[in-house]
Amino acid sequence: MRALIRRKAQLVLDDVAEPEAGRGQTLVKSLVCGICGSDLHQLHHLEHVAAAGKRSGLGDWIDPNRDVIFGHEFCAEIIEHGPGSTSKLKPGQRVVSMPFVMAGGKAEWVGISNHVPGAFAERFLLSEDFLLPVPNGLPSEHAALVEPLAVGAHAVAESGITRDAIAMIIGCGPVGLALIAALKVAGHEPIVACDFSPARRAAAEKMGAHVVIDPSKDDPHARWETLGAAPTLLEQMKWAAAGRASKPSVVFECAGAPGLIQRIIDGAPPKTRIVVVGACMQPDTIEPVIALNKQIELRFVLAYTAGEFAATLHNLAEGHIDGAPLVTDIVSLESAAEAFNRLSTPGADVKILVRPGS
Amino acid sequence: MRALIRRKAQLVLDDVAEPEAGRGQTLVKSLVCGICGSDLHQLHHLEHVAAAGKRSGLGDWIDPNRDVIFGHEFCAEIIEHGPGSTSKLKPGQRVVSMPFVMAGGKAEWVGISNHVPGAFAERFLLSEDFLLPVPNGLPSEHAALVEPLAVGAHAVAESGITRDAIAMIIGCGPVGLALIAALKVAGHEPIVACDFSPARRAAAEKMGAHVVIDPSKDDPHARWETLGAAPTLLEQMKWAAAGRASKPSVVFECAGAPGLIQRIIDGAPPKTRIVVVGACMQPDTIEPVIALNKQIELRFVLAYTAGEFAATLHNLAEGHIDGAPLVTDIVSLESAAEAFNRLSTPGADVKILVRPGS
Repeated sequence: MRALIRRKAQLVLDDVAEPEAGRGQTLVKSLVCGICGSDLHQLHHLEHVAAAGKRSGLGDWIDPNRDVIFGHEFCAEIIEHGPGSTSKLKPGQRVVSMPFVMAGGKAEWVGISNHVPGAFAERFLLSEDFLLPVPNGLPSEHAALVEPLAVGAHAVAESGITRDAIAMIIGCGPVGLALIAALKVAGHEPIVACDFSPARRAAAEKMGAHVVIDPSKDDPHARWETLGAAPTLLEQMKWAAAGRASKPSVVFECAGAPGLIQRIIDGAPPKTRIVVVGACMQPDTIEPVIALNKQIELRFVLAYTAGEFAATLHNLAEGHIDGAPLVTDIVSLESAAEAFNRLSTPGADVKILVRPGS
Repeated sequence: MRALIRRKAQLVLDDVAEPEAGRGQTLVKSLVCGICGSDLHQLHHLEHVAAAGKRSGLGDWIDPNRDVIFGHEFCAEIIEHGPGSTSKLKPGQRVVSMPFVMAGGKAEWVGISNHVPGAFAERFLLSEDFLLPVPNGLPSEHAALVEPLAVGAHAVAESGITRDAIAMIIGCGPVGLALIAALKVAGHEPIVACDFSPARRAAAEKMGAHVVIDPSKDDPHARWETLGAAPTLLEQMKWAAAGRASKPSVVFECAGAPGLIQRIIDGAPPKTRIVVVGACMQPDTIEPVIALNKQIELRFVLAYTAGEFAATLHNLAEGHIDGAPLVTDIVSLESAAEAFNRLSTPGADVKILVRPGS
């Protein structure tokens, strides 16, 4: 079958062996799959990602010198179950799944593995126990967004944000938009979104942000007082003395740019909780004394739970989340490598989907 | 009156004007006052501290070129109240107070101000509303520890630590020992304490640590599995698959050494909460991708509430906390500058108290 392969830090289209469903596995046809920021990063820096994973306690989980087929934000169609299947889902059924498959007695990541293909291949394997049927009426292009959108649901859950808090989203790429979607579903207000890109600001507004800021024109941290939070320690004392309530503040760092965490520590009100969702891949500098003075909290969050994944699919199917503003293009497997290039300099693009089928 | 003055980054003994209690203020005699790590740092680097405070939203709160009299960990004796006093506390009564005094309509820090003296002077001013009487039987030398010990009570409260969690204290100076005291009062177990200094490890044991580690001989992060926590992501998955419970982990960073936060991120189990209590005064490097992979949480905490301060005094008076292991020397005002020098290379010393009275 045809697949888009990462080989020696390049993307190449090549034929690979047809996967075969073992016991507990299901062979699926890849209908559509989004390109994730992590795919982009892993294309060029898989050595770093492998080393960071090892340092994080994952062991020798991937060999960057061997082929990898990316693709973990997929909607697929069941072709056939492996031997001894007890699944009620029939061939032809559209499905999504968390990007894991049990193989050789352990969980392999689908989309970042030397052993199993990801969804940038015509066909790939999933575990039948993890399959979730795509409800009728939900287009495959939107079902494929469940994975990145679940990241937002998880970050909001882990943030512990209270109803009275001001939520500020820094960076409105797919992760930031997923945050806005999750906050909107939770009925949160206000949602304040910041991005340099006009296209991403427009998408943020469509996803439900109440205030949208262009940081090249307005400092988002100049807004705190208007939004209802005492912006500095001195103001906090004055407000407290005057019996004026100050709203809590939660900032979601969704850009992963170096230096950004400290800029938020500098600009955010005292006691701000900063939820770091964007992955800054290089070492970064913070100034603990400023964070101490302001009693800042930093929560680093990742991925999602099975429950959050299923709830996000439900929210897409019920129309509580409209995935349309995320998708800015859909391309064939032949054009996928070029789409990776386009995304490496984000401009008008937010999420590009790939249709691996012929 | 005599006072120890910070003047041009030096400590000098000099005569200064006698303070006079205004309305709402109380003139007190300084009985005993501890030297804090922040005094030490501010002696040499007040410009940095002033700038960091300004950047943290405190405005122009101190002029490093003008005289400052340190001393904010005090036990004092009431000399006289200012005009119109309604205080029930009589002259001769021993008192402690949070280190603030209302002066000229605003709160001045006692011990770090250009306008009011700290407790390294024979006499100083407090606000009569903030005075707490020292219960009979509590020696002044132990009452003076209420301020640093309240820092521990606050850090434990802000940590949100649960009963089942493993508490690890990195650095057993006065801050680390205060943490151990507060965890002990809360009935927490196990308390694991780490310090390179034998004297500080001995103090940690006396304060109630259950496990004491010399990091020059044993890597504290090699202990997690024995303590009951899955130490890595891979182990976490294995434990989960085997139905083996993993205890939560909370690490209190009480040393403030550069690079230490990242070393804890590297060594601690996934989902560890790191409570930063030690003030690293210089920019520090973290690697967000490792923190993300491990879903680490960083809480920067500072100071205490009025309730925590009062509760700590109560715990000292009732014998729930024994301050004795903290105090390694008591010196006169004449020897205080030399005691500052000794503390700048911590060895056998933990907390040195100063008796400013003649």
